[in-house]
Amino acid sequence: MSKETLIKSIREIPDYPKPGILFYDVTTLFKNPVALREAANILYEMYKDKGITKVAGIESRGFILGAILAEKLGAGFVMIRKPGKLPAEVMEISYEKEYGTDTIQMHKDSIDENDVVLMHDDLLATGGTMAAACKMVKQMNPKKIYVNFLIELTALHGKEVFDEDVELESVLHL
Amino acid sequence: MSKETLIKSIREIPDYPKPGILFYDVTTLFKNPVALREAANILYEMYKDKGITKVAGIESRGFILGAILAEKLGAGFVMIRKPGKLPAEVMEISYEKEYGTDTIQMHKDSIDENDVVLMHDDLLATGGTMAAACKMVKQMNPKKIYVNFLIELTALHGKEVFDEDVELESVLHL
Repeated sequence: MSKETLIKSIREIPDYPKPGILFYDVTTLFKNPVALREAANILYEMYKDKGITKVAGIESRGFILGAILAEKLGAGFVMIRKPGKLPAEVMEISYEKEYGTDTIQMHKDSIDENDVVLMHDDLLATGGTMAAACKMVKQMNPKKIYVNFLIELTALHGKEVFDEDVELESVLHL
Repeated sequence: MSKETLIKSIREIPDYPKPGILFYDVTTLFKNPVALREAANILYEMYKDKGITKVAGIESRGFILGAILAEKLGAGFVMIRKPGKLPAEVMEISYEKEYGTDTIQMHKDSIDENDVVLMHDDLLATGGTMAAACKMVKQMNPKKIYVNFLIELTALHGKEVFDEDVELESVLHL
């Protein structure tokens, strides 16, 4: 399956969640066995030689390929979640959204200074959530942080909110 | 890794989310590379010969091993989510919880009559959410529905809320 076919497996929903927005619905990629495996294989090839020890996925769509990739790489999987959903001691970070602020959390003991971390989410739009997640993970002093998205909306220039030393790569560019 | 070691990778949190409840925190299993792969391998062995075409995971912890298993089996992955999170046309079902009712949704086109479906979640307690999810999936007329949990709390008899024809199996019994 080519990347072009992979892109075709993503459903476009006009005017969602509000008028003027074209939403890329990855559920149609996930439910397609060939597309799901192909996305997983591409990701595996991208990161297999990086010594990744933890994949951190952002709730909830980032859990899907994040978890698959963790298992394929022989890494552990870590959840970055909305507040109040993790039962042990957490770190948290708040960041500005279009309207008001948002907060994400992760377990304090989920990453340490021996880890090489791959952060994953399904979509890079403005990059606010992932940039905040990276800041939070940096406080745990891992050896290195890689950042990955299934889809990057290049017109939104979300890449620019990340520090220059962040190695950011996406599977598909739309 | 034995099932006993797998169980030891799960963190026990007393009095969470409220006094008297012992919470099994699977994030410590997910972040452990050996435990994550072992759980995935056990699940794969359980279902590799069942002709599964779709794995449906329940938000959010059911997404982790559900997605890994889907990819390993060469199946598609389907998300069962809280209301308002899926962008296309949905089916939904409401069910009684301890306090009030809860609702879950899935995309209408996520499963059809050609599918053999494996439903997955991390924990079987009273079984209310999964039983409702099964009822919702049955309306899509798949060939067969299997139900799976990583952990089954046997003392709570959650199995009893499922119809007798449902094939329910768990990896770990606590």
